[in-house]
Order: sequence, then structure tokens, then C-alpha cells
Amino acid sequence: MQHNAYGKSRVRLTKIIRHPDRHDVKEFAVDIQLEGDFDDSYLKGDNSKVVATDSMKNTVYALAADHPLTDIEGFARFLGQHFLKKYAQVREAMVFITEDLWQRVVMDGKEHHHAFVSCGGEKRTTAVGSTRDSVEIDSGLEQLVVLKTTDSEFHGFVRDEYTTLADTKDRIFATSVSANWTFASDKVDYNRVYAKIRQTIIDVFATHHSLAVQQTEHVMAAEILKQCPEVKTITISMPNQHRIPVDLTKFGLQNRNEIFVPIDEPYGLISITMGRE
Amino acid sequence: MQHNAYGKSRVRLTKIIRHPDRHDVKEFAVDIQLEGDFDDSYLKGDNSKVVATDSMKNTVYALAADHPLTDIEGFARFLGQHFLKKYAQVREAMVFITEDLWQRVVMDGKEHHHAFVSCGGEKRTTAVGSTRDSVEIDSGLEQLVVLKTTDSEFHGFVRDEYTTLADTKDRIFATSVSANWTFASDKVDYNRVYAKIRQTIIDVFATHHSLAVQQTEHVMAAEILKQCPEVKTITISMPNQHRIPVDLTKFGLQNRNEIFVPIDEPYGLISITMGRE
Amino acid sequence: MQHNAYGKSRVRLTKIIRHPDRHDVKEFAVDIQLEGDFDDSYLKGDNSKVVATDSMKNTVYALAADHPLTDIEGFARFLGQHFLKKYAQVREAMVFITEDLWQRVVMDGKEHHHAFVSCGGEKRTTAVGSTRDSVEIDSGLEQLVVLKTTDSEFHGFVRDEYTTLADTKDRIFATSVSANWTFASDKVDYNRVYAKIRQTIIDVFATHHSLAVQQTEHVMAAEILKQCPEVKTITISMPNQHRIPVDLTKFGLQNRNEIFVPIDEPYGLISITMGRE
Amino acid sequence: MQHNAYGKSRVRLTKIIRHPDRHDVKEFAVDIQLEGDFDDSYLKGDNSKVVATDSMKNTVYALAADHPLTDIEGFARFLGQHFLKKYAQVREAMVFITEDLWQRVVMDGKEHHHAFVSCGGEKRTTAVGSTRDSVEIDSGLEQLVVLKTTDSEFHGFVRDEYTTLADTKDRIFATSVSANWTFASDKVDYNRVYAKIRQTIIDVFATHHSLAVQQTEHVMAAEILKQCPEVKTITISMPNQHRIPVDLTKFGLQNRNEIFVPIDEPYGLISITMGRE
Repeated sequence: MQHNAYGKSRVRLTKIIRHPDRHDVKEFAVDIQLEGDFDDSYLKGDNSKVVATDSMKNTVYALAADHPLTDIEGFARFLGQHFLKKYAQVREAMVFITEDLWQRVVMDGKEHHHAFVSCGGEKRTTAVGSTRDSVEIDSGLEQLVVLKTTDSEFHGFVRDEYTTLADTKDRIFATSVSANWTFASDKVDYNRVYAKIRQTIIDVFATHHSLAVQQTEHVMAAEILKQCPEVKTITISMPNQHRIPVDLTKFGLQNRNEIFVPIDEPYGLISITMGRE
Repeated sequence: MQHNAYGKSRVRLTKIIRHPDRHDVKEFAVDIQLEGDFDDSYLKGDNSKVVATDSMKNTVYALAADHPLTDIEGFARFLGQHFLKKYAQVREAMVFITEDLWQRVVMDGKEHHHAFVSCGGEKRTTAVGSTRDSVEIDSGLEQLVVLKTTDSEFHGFVRDEYTTLADTKDRIFATSVSANWTFASDKVDYNRVYAKIRQTIIDVFATHHSLAVQQTEHVMAAEILKQCPEVKTITISMPNQHRIPVDLTKFGLQNRNEIFVPIDEPYGLISITMGRE
Repeated sequence: MQHNAYGKSRVRLTKIIRHPDRHDVKEFAVDIQLEGDFDDSYLKGDNSKVVATDSMKNTVYALAADHPLTDIEGFARFLGQHFLKKYAQVREAMVFITEDLWQRVVMDGKEHHHAFVSCGGEKRTTAVGSTRDSVEIDSGLEQLVVLKTTDSEFHGFVRDEYTTLADTKDRIFATSVSANWTFASDKVDYNRVYAKIRQTIIDVFATHHSLAVQQTEHVMAAEILKQCPEVKTITISMPNQHRIPVDLTKFGLQNRNEIFVPIDEPYGLISITMGRE
Repeated sequence: MQHNAYGKSRVRLTKIIRHPDRHDVKEFAVDIQLEGDFDDSYLKGDNSKVVATDSMKNTVYALAADHPLTDIEGFARFLGQHFLKKYAQVREAMVFITEDLWQRVVMDGKEHHHAFVSCGGEKRTTAVGSTRDSVEIDSGLEQLVVLKTTDSEFHGFVRDEYTTLADTKDRIFATSVSANWTFASDKVDYNRVYAKIRQTIIDVFATHHSLAVQQTEHVMAAEILKQCPEVKTITISMPNQHRIPVDLTKFGLQNRNEIFVPIDEPYGLISITMGRE
């Protein structure tokens, strides 16, 4: 064997945190993968060193009970350390957490004590790899879906026998942003960084006059590195969720750049990774 | 043949509406089904009366170009009337529209001119059935996902040999609300009704002390009929998106009603239809 | 209230049936909806007549233990009768079953004793509505995905200012067939009817020279009524899973009707219902 | 920038290959990612070296027209070489192909000339990374869903305060196999290797008496290396699609290891990579 690993995926968890003035709710899906001295299970079906994936699931619930769950990064680290301490046969513990996001109901301008509306498909994520010598954290966000109706151009690209796309000075720009970042230090307010990165992505998307999805990504990444000294590297990936102009002249109408077909596939996919040089 | 119908589904459409001070964006998926004198296509493969579904798609784009798209109900009616007027062989036109929802980006407390964030999976819908004598409109919303951490009880239900569920005085209540409504008149501000119904559902969900999902639905439906005289009937359907308490005593811990497993299936499904008696 | 109903959805169940020479496996998802005297739960939160949806789930498991599960129709009827007999407050029980399909592994031409490969997304279904006076059964199949590369034409349809589709004498015909049928009598070999209908759909699809999806559906429906005297009515619904020819002349190549783009949306949707006149 | 790449994803393609005695159909989804001298687009919005992702899509169609598409590996290599030869600014071309699978309709024991039934969700895949100096091919299959009703044990695992799972000598074993393999040489019959690996996975699954998912994976991987000298490394990943025994004693019934609940989450996930030592 060159490699083996195993674990439990999609351990879903809801925790209510009851503050005097309000309830918080946290919803996570946790994936665990362990590497270590598990060869006998593969080679002989001898499971004496195997921590059952069912027990991993139980561990998530038991440990969540006494953990504040302030941020997913902290809980993922805590889980990783637990597996390393508890089981000598574990060499590396990888913990992935995806957080479902809820926003508090607002009534008459006041935040409600205990009622929430889902934020939809957008997720906050972290991947924490822990060994006895090291911890690596890669946090992120997914499915931040944004659209703008103007301030986006695309022209001057290679034009050859495979090119049918027209140059455009004014197109719709729609995408579902994914971002991942690593940290420059171990003392980080993970929630602040997440909120700042999310806000920066939206602000740059809204205000930057785009000549290419590539360019917008670079401005986003550069601005995140500027705004967040805690961030070591930032990766941004953006599918181009195309809105294709409909040619209305076929029906005797004028094209005024108003009517488009959204298509799911095929889609352009553009990514960047930036660090501090 | 007892019945036949055909049409085009998932005709997706984006329209930019350029106001002097801001852009609006509308995104719809339109489904069309026509009934009428189409038997020859079924019986003989004679398509001389068949409006190709591809032409229906083109029609949606052409008609959207010169229509304000103020509300999906208006556009669905307009499409239905078009098919009836244009093609004598059409007896009934059913038009279904699902609207993808976008919220305007807010920066420094100000709404952005042309940038939007997706509202996620929640949709606004309408189904309009038109004949030469009648129009029936059934509008709705889907996937309004809400959760509250308390103020929900469930007890006193039938207890017999198939019952293992414990009575509870304090449970999580989470659901993905679907609602559908018909209209008492033809002169309606469809956008106002939609907004009022959506807000009423959230407000009742947040503030009603629930003894059963059934009871909450009834309060919602009654309140909607009270708030919206334009509404003739209201149907609400709510899956019970269960959060199952984890029994932590198995791990030597105390149960404090804080740790739950969200499960997608099986799920309870509770519905009500109310009208004005 | 004009109407109310509630129940449990997606009660999933696997049963192993151990024959001397082989194992069978059955996998169902059961949905139950009950109507009856449940108004007090809606109006007052009084659940004394409410059979908890959790108890419905338990009932499915308990009843499946001693039932042969020969066909989904039989088990759905049995469940419906159970709820009516057991609970006086139930007026109507609707039971929907979706069956996941498995095919036996074949090794060296011999069927394996206990190993199976999934049939993919295709499902067999039934919907059984039971009252104290009547039983109505509507069975079906879903997601039978078929494609043929020729023997499909479409031309002669209405040509006007909204028409851009070209006539074609040779197109790809691909669809995901859904069918539903009711029964002429109460003494039926449900498995035989299901198998015969499925085979007839495939045979007609493969051998009929199609001038329209509509025509193919009619031939299928007529042939099913002919082959299956047990069937009272048959409904077939077929999305047209379009393969759009790519215009290769743009790239200096010849169009030979060989290269196509499969698109998921928009799609044509054509349906028929036939009975015995 | 530390890294950037861009391309087109989900370029879907259907090709009919008309042999004298039968038609073949090929359906692929192609993803392309290019790396190279694209910094100016990111840094300045200067797209003069950018091959538009729309042009990549056109390229796929144009090149498929004159390519036999014998295997996805061959077409992915061909596409990769094309981008490297055609555009000096491209340093690396990554091409991913996912093949949708169709089986020929059989009527009266004879294979049909041009009609097919979908194989469902199972896919064949390849990922080919090409530079001017090297080609790396990683092929695979996904969603091969199998189940066996016996011949699977799991016991003797770590038992501590987080363990609630019972030992079992007879459980259902169900999984959705993913496999990926690299090649030992450049002269390979890719279709033969794929077919042999797929068959070996099914055969081992059916016949191996399993003491752990881990052990089954190891037997599969070892057997594949033995059967396929063309294979350099093999990775297998298997989610444990749990069937949880229902405790029927709660309802006064006996547990006979016959009734189970299939659950989608959480799920165990077990993987192995083997090469030739």
C-alpha cells in the first residue's frame, strides 16, 4: 500500500447556545479522515486498531457538548488533537467542517431572540490537518452567488478559427465565488477574517470595473491580502455563470442588451492563488 | 386519448431593467403547457397544428423584451393570452413561472446601483391557467427555510405499540415553508400580496408558541387571510426538518437539550388549505 | 379549513428475503399521508388524535417485518388498510412507494446468490389511496432514460415569426420516460404488468419510426393497452432531452449530423393519457 | 501571483458513429484548464493572450468531428496536444473527460442497431495533464453502486467510551465505488483496462468474504494490479452506504436481521492507494 485513510463524512450537528438575551444556533457537517497504523485492517481484516467510523460520529457529538463552537476552525483543531491524543495509532487527523449559515429574523428593526432564516446554499468551511508536530488550517467560503448588470467588459482576446464569441463592452457578470485561505499565524480571530474576506469579495465585485474575470479575481485577492494581515495565501475560484444575449432581431425586434439566457453549462472557470511575495 | 398536452419547460430568462438611478434584474424560469387540437400529431405524426416547443421558447424571449415584468403573474397572464390569441388550435395555455430572487448589495448603508447577491434556494412562483373564458392564478413561494431554537412543544399524541417518540415541551422547530394562494379578485398588487404573505409566515413562525406544526400552520393561514383581503385561499405545506436530540448519557455526559442531529429523511409533512368560509 | 393532511415522507426500508438458493433485496421509500379527524391539532394544538409521524415510520418497519413485499402495490394497500383499521379518526390513507431497483450480479453466466448492482436512477412507483369504501391504485415508473441515434423526424410544424427551428428528417431522440397506470380489476399480477409495460416502452421506442414525440407516445400507450388487459388507463410523459446539432461550418468543417450538444434545459415536455374508449 | 489557471467546464458532447451494421453513441462532458502566460489578464485586464473559454468549447466540437473518440483517454490527449501546439502561451493543458454510459437495447436476444438505455449515474472518467515534455493520465470510474446481503463482518474494532456500534458477523455491505488508476506505459488499450478493472471490482465485491471495507478494498486493488499489468497505481474509495438494522423488539417483534434503514449520511469513507512495490 502506498496510502490509506478512512473516516466518517457528513456528521451533521446542531447546537443551541443559550445566552441570557438570545439563542445562537450552529449547524455543521463534519468530515473526519484518519491516517496511521491501520494496515492490518486492510491486509488481514484485523480491526483491533480501527476506531469505528461510528465512534468518530459519537466523538463529534460528545466533544461538541462541552465546546463553545465559537468558530469552526477551533472545533476542527480540537477534534484533530483529540484523535491524536486518544489513539496512538493515529498519525494524522484531517477534519473538514462545513457550516450552514443562519441569519437572525428581524422584526420591527429588532433582532429576534431565537428565530432564524437560512442563508441558502452559501457555506463557510475549514479543513484542518493535524499531526503530532504540526497543524495546517485552510478555511474558506463557498457558493457566494453574486451578479452585476454592468461594469464588466471582455474583449481583445485571441481571435482565430475557433473564435465565435463577440467582443463586449457591457455584459452581465454573474458567479458563485469560492475562496480558500491559509493563515500567517496561530493567533487569529477566525470569525473576523471570514467576515472581512466575505465583505471584501462583495465590495470588489460591486465596485471594480472588470475587464476580465481574471482581473476582478486579482483585485479581490490583492485587497484581501491588504485588509487581512492574518491571511498568508488566498485562492479564489469563480465559475462564469454565463448570461447569453438573445438575438431578438430574429423576431423582428431590436437588441438592447436587456434579454439574456442564463445557462448552467458549459461554464468558464477562472482561479487565482496569491500570497505575500 | 383522454388527455394530451405538451410544451416547453425551464425556459430561463434574465432581463435587465435600466432605471435612471438603478438597475433591476429579473430572473425567471418559464414552463408552458398547451392543450388543444393536437390529436393529429399524436395519431398520425401530422405536426401541421403543432407550435414547436422551440418556438414557445422564442416567444418567451420576444414577449419579455417589450413587457415590464413587474410581476410574474402579469407576465404569465400575458403569455397565456398570447398563445390563445395567436393560435386557434390552443384551447388552454398553462404558464408556470419560478422566479430566482436577488437582493441588492448594500455598501455603507446604501443600496448599490447594479450589484446583487443571490437569495439562495428560495423561489417565488405562479401558475396561470388561461382559456378563452377564464384565467386562474395560483401563486406561491418555496423553500423559505426557517428554524427556531425554542417555543415549540409536541406532546399528548396517540401512544400505542408503534410509538417510541418522547413527549417534548421544548424542541427545535425547523422547516422549509411552501405556500400557495389564489386571489379573490382580478385587481391585485401581486408584489404586495407576495411580500405580505412572506412576512406574515416569518412573523408567525417567530412569535407563535407552537404546540404542533399543524397549529402553527393554522395560525399562519388565518393571519394571512386576515392581512390579505386579496387572497381567496391559502395552502401551506411544511416538512418537519427534524433535529433529533443526541443521547449524550451514553458517553457519560448530561443531556441539556443542546446537541442535535439534523436529518433530511424521513421527514414529517404537514399541510393545510384555508379559505374564507 | 378546507383541507388538511399530514404524514411521514421518505421512510426508507431495506429488506433481505433469504430464499434457500438466493437472497432477494427490496429497497423502498414510503410516504404516508393521512386525512381525517385531526382538526383539533390545527385549531387548538390538541394532539390527542394525532398519530405521530414518527409512529408511522415505526409502523412501516414493523409491518414490513411480517409482509412478503412481493410487490409495492400489495404493501402499500396493506399499510393503508392498517391505518384505517387501527385508527378510527383516519378517513383516508394515501401511501406512496418508490422502489430502488437492483439487478443481480452475473458471473460466468450465472446469477450471484447475494450480490447486486444498482439500476441507477430508474424507479418503480405506486400511489395507493384507501378509504373504508374504496382503494385506488396508480402505479408507475420513472427515469427510464433511453436514446436512439436515428429513426426520428420532426417537420411540418407551425412556421411563423417565432419559429427558428429547422425541419429535420433525422434527429437524435432521447428522453427520460415516466409512465403511470391504473388497473381495470383488483386481481392483478402487479409485477407482470410493470415488467410488460417497461418492456413495451423500450420496444416501441427502439422500433417505431417517429414523426413526433407525440406520435411515439401514442403508439406506446396504445400498445400497452393492447398488451396489458389489466391496465385501465395509461399516462406517459416524456421530456425531450434535446441534442442540438453543432454548426461545424463556422470552423470550416462539414456538418455530417454527427456532433451534438446535449442540453438539460429548456426541454420539451409531452404527455398523453389513454384509456379504453 | 503564486498560481493561476482558467478554462471551460462541462462542455457536453454527443457523437454518433455510424458503422454499417450499427450506430455507436458517445457522450462526454469535457473540462479544460490551461496554465501559462496569462498574467496580463489578471494584472491589467489585457486579454491579448487569452483563449476565450467559449473558443475552447468550439475547439472541443471541431476536434471531435474528425476524431474517432475510441476512448476518452485518446481524445483528452489529443485536446491537450492541440492547445500546446496551437498556443505558445500555454504551458500546461489539463483535460478532464467524464463519459455518460449507454447500453444497447436487446430485443429477442439481439442487440439493437441504434437504440440505447442509460446506465444511470455510473461514469467513466479521465484526467490528462499535458506539457511540452510530459503527459500524465489518471483514469477512473465513479458511482458503481453495489450491494450484497451477506458475507460481510465487522468486529474486533476499538471499544471505548465513544463506542456504541455492536460487533456484527453478518451485515449488508453497500457502497458506491470510485476508482482511479495510472498507467505503467504509453501503449495501452484503455478500453480493455477499464472493462477489466470494472469487472474485477464487481467480482471481488461479490465473492470476497469481507472482514472490513478496508480489507475488501485491498483485495480489489491487489487483484486489479495482478489482472492489469498496464496499471501502475490504483486508488479505490468506498463510502460505506450504511443499512442500519431496525430494532423490532420495541414493537414486540423478533429481530431476524432482515429489516434495515438505508441512510445517506453520515457515511464511512475508506480509501486505499496501491502500486507495484
